[in-house]
Amino acid sequence: MTMYEIIQAKRSGRALTREQISFFVRGFTAGDIPDYQAAALLMAICLRGMTARETADLTLAMAASGDRLDLSSLPGVPVDKHSTGGVGDKTTLIVAPAAAACGVPVCKMSGRGLGHTGGTIDKLEAIPGFRTSLTPRQAIVQTRRIGLCVAGQTGRLAPADKKMYALRDVTATVQSLPLIASSIMSKKIAAGCRGIVLDVKFGSGAFMKTRREAEQLALQMLRIGKRAGRRCAAVLSDMDRPLGYAVGNAVEVAEAVEVLRGGGPADLRALCVTLAGLMVGLSLGLPREQAEQRVTAALADGSALEKLRQLCAAQGGDVRCIDDPSRLPQAACRIEVPAPQSGYLLAVDTEQIGLAAMLLGAGRRTRGDAIDPAAGILLRKKPGNAVQKGEPLAVLLTDRPDAAAEAAAKLTGALRFGAAPPTAAPLIAAVLTEA
Amino acid sequence: MTMYEIIQAKRSGRALTREQISFFVRGFTAGDIPDYQAAALLMAICLRGMTARETADLTLAMAASGDRLDLSSLPGVPVDKHSTGGVGDKTTLIVAPAAAACGVPVCKMSGRGLGHTGGTIDKLEAIPGFRTSLTPRQAIVQTRRIGLCVAGQTGRLAPADKKMYALRDVTATVQSLPLIASSIMSKKIAAGCRGIVLDVKFGSGAFMKTRREAEQLALQMLRIGKRAGRRCAAVLSDMDRPLGYAVGNAVEVAEAVEVLRGGGPADLRALCVTLAGLMVGLSLGLPREQAEQRVTAALADGSALEKLRQLCAAQGGDVRCIDDPSRLPQAACRIEVPAPQSGYLLAVDTEQIGLAAMLLGAGRRTRGDAIDPAAGILLRKKPGNAVQKGEPLAVLLTDRPDAAAEAAAKLTGALRFGAAPPTAAPLIAAVLTEA
Repeated sequence: MTMYEIIQAKRSGRALTREQISFFVRGFTAGDIPDYQAAALLMAICLRGMTARETADLTLAMAASGDRLDLSSLPGVPVDKHSTGGVGDKTTLIVAPAAAACGVPVCKMSGRGLGHTGGTIDKLEAIPGFRTSLTPRQAIVQTRRIGLCVAGQTGRLAPADKKMYALRDVTATVQSLPLIASSIMSKKIAAGCRGIVLDVKFGSGAFMKTRREAEQLALQMLRIGKRAGRRCAAVLSDMDRPLGYAVGNAVEVAEAVEVLRGGGPADLRALCVTLAGLMVGLSLGLPREQAEQRVTAALADGSALEKLRQLCAAQGGDVRCIDDPSRLPQAACRIEVPAPQSGYLLAVDTEQIGLAAMLLGAGRRTRGDAIDPAAGILLRKKPGNAVQKGEPLAVLLTDRPDAAAEAAAKLTGALRFGAAPPTAAPLIAAVLTEA
Repeated sequence: MTMYEIIQAKRSGRALTREQISFFVRGFTAGDIPDYQAAALLMAICLRGMTARETADLTLAMAASGDRLDLSSLPGVPVDKHSTGGVGDKTTLIVAPAAAACGVPVCKMSGRGLGHTGGTIDKLEAIPGFRTSLTPRQAIVQTRRIGLCVAGQTGRLAPADKKMYALRDVTATVQSLPLIASSIMSKKIAAGCRGIVLDVKFGSGAFMKTRREAEQLALQMLRIGKRAGRRCAAVLSDMDRPLGYAVGNAVEVAEAVEVLRGGGPADLRALCVTLAGLMVGLSLGLPREQAEQRVTAALADGSALEKLRQLCAAQGGDVRCIDDPSRLPQAACRIEVPAPQSGYLLAVDTEQIGLAAMLLGAGRRTRGDAIDPAAGILLRKKPGNAVQKGEPLAVLLTDRPDAAAEAAAKLTGALRFGAAPPTAAPLIAAVLTEA
């Protein structure tokens, strides 16, 4: 078997065999197959596609390319959650403790922000002292003890995916449903959970720009999960608006705590109940409605908040920040952005909000950048709200006052106003539970 | 401008601008653009194609990537010839002196064999002493003096093409009409001729397997030539049979001399008259029939043969070999291959004949292999001929008698016999003179 023949086969539109896919993944990970041959194959995959069987084989080969977490020592059915990423997406901070409070073992490996805003790991690190570098063993021991762990993903989990993503990133081969689906699922499968809940976002602030694309991606991931023997469910959620009002790191922790206290923004709360409900349903085998009732109860009775406290304590974070979020890092400057006109807020270009937050210090411009945990944006208005000219639209939080003017302009430019209220699209477009 | 955007554009099926193509060719040749990005772009070009304008821009950018021959000091209109390569293709050895004898300045850069059989340069080097390594200046001076030069192509002519071909060869991106057409034409344009005659072959012994593919390639090259301000013509010729009877190096020189003496196989002679006629027509502005009459006269009156003598003398070759081809290198073993059955020879898998000749030493297995100039095959039968069982089908010429059995089996396996004579397809399928 040669890499040449494999490229040639995919170039001609033929499906690759499991052996060919495995040959490629192993050879590429080991450095035996040069980047130029891998790049040619990846482009051929982008343009020729992959069958469901090929996509599953690719996923499993990548999952087998490095360490695999063995969660069999955990009681019950551990369930993982993955979000394709969005602006203001702090759901893991709520969903993981809420599901754990309902008896789901949650041993989660999360990533840092790849795009303009921070990831879950960046947000948790806004809590002073919070450690996210855990060995797989430490993560499992902690989950056995308190039912919950959220750690940073190690490079030894699915290294094939890591290497392949780096190459795709510089060869314009990122946009490919089979490659995106296998990339996500390979890491989740290597992370060992028996159930996976997927939050697939679409809209201006998401990787997938349309609902249709998001649905296609979700269906591909559900199919992979089925072939890999995982229980899976997916939510399609709208990212044509930021989730909640807070965009940043410390501010998102504070907003997550509000929801765990039984309050918080309605949209964020609703999405979290759905996601945690699906986790509970997959883990405990409960119907959706019943599972969501348990989650709602855990948010109401403080048990979900208590799980976050336990998580924080177990991983060295300052638990006082959970009870008093004003102890979280605070920005030196708070700058109000006034509405440029009166009317209804019709729509938000969410990606621009994320870029504005990045300018303030909340995200990374390039991979090595440091994040300012205190920086971010607190929105005051959501699509559908009436606005008076001069009324605050948002508050910018930053230690870089010189960046505020550009961020404010970007933010204002991202908003569209009108004379009549818009028709509201639902935040949750669909819940998919079978492939 | 970034390479990422260029890959992305082609991936999405958009036409690249002249500036984008030039950015890629310059950056890739200089080593500033890594192979993996070039490989991704080449695969995207294979699968998305290129417009005629893009293909011409790519050709001109590659032609501009290195040295360019300036033939303006030659009298008249110099015309080049290119063959896409076939088994037993010794046309340059006949066509170049024949056209030169008619007054066409011929300053030709030729290649070595890329596939299983030798190229024109390998064939000329079968003449003891014949030098093919000439500087561009030496080539021009010689052409000014005797009207004819055939030299090996230097790496400084269209280096972008050389580098790109090496990458395509290992990334399964060779088969692409715009890439093939631009590769050929970039070298011809850099070589400076004002007219180009293309011999595009199709069939089992050619790179293009079908007439339709050959026609598409020819049309693309004619279109490039027109945009580059070159006078061009193309012949589509059938390679479902070897050209002439000789396959090898010294044996092909001997067969070429036969044609230049006014004899030789009818198929080879007809193709050469057509090709040289087109060269004469393009150079002197004559109609095809009249140009072919001049070529036929030059073959009959010995002036074409005299040009080959002059070429040989000018480049250090032993001219006695031209007058007495038995002085060319002779193989130690001559092994007859008898017909396995009686009947009519219906068809020949020409590529297999080429591979059999390679086994005997006439071609290269890998790039560094040395060629045995004496090795080869002399066919005794052509499709359409009647054969008696046991009658010789071919004579194998080799210094490797141990390889003869495998070569004989390959040769016999490449022939198909039947009870009735086949319907003959014309050797020259079409002559195309405008884009």
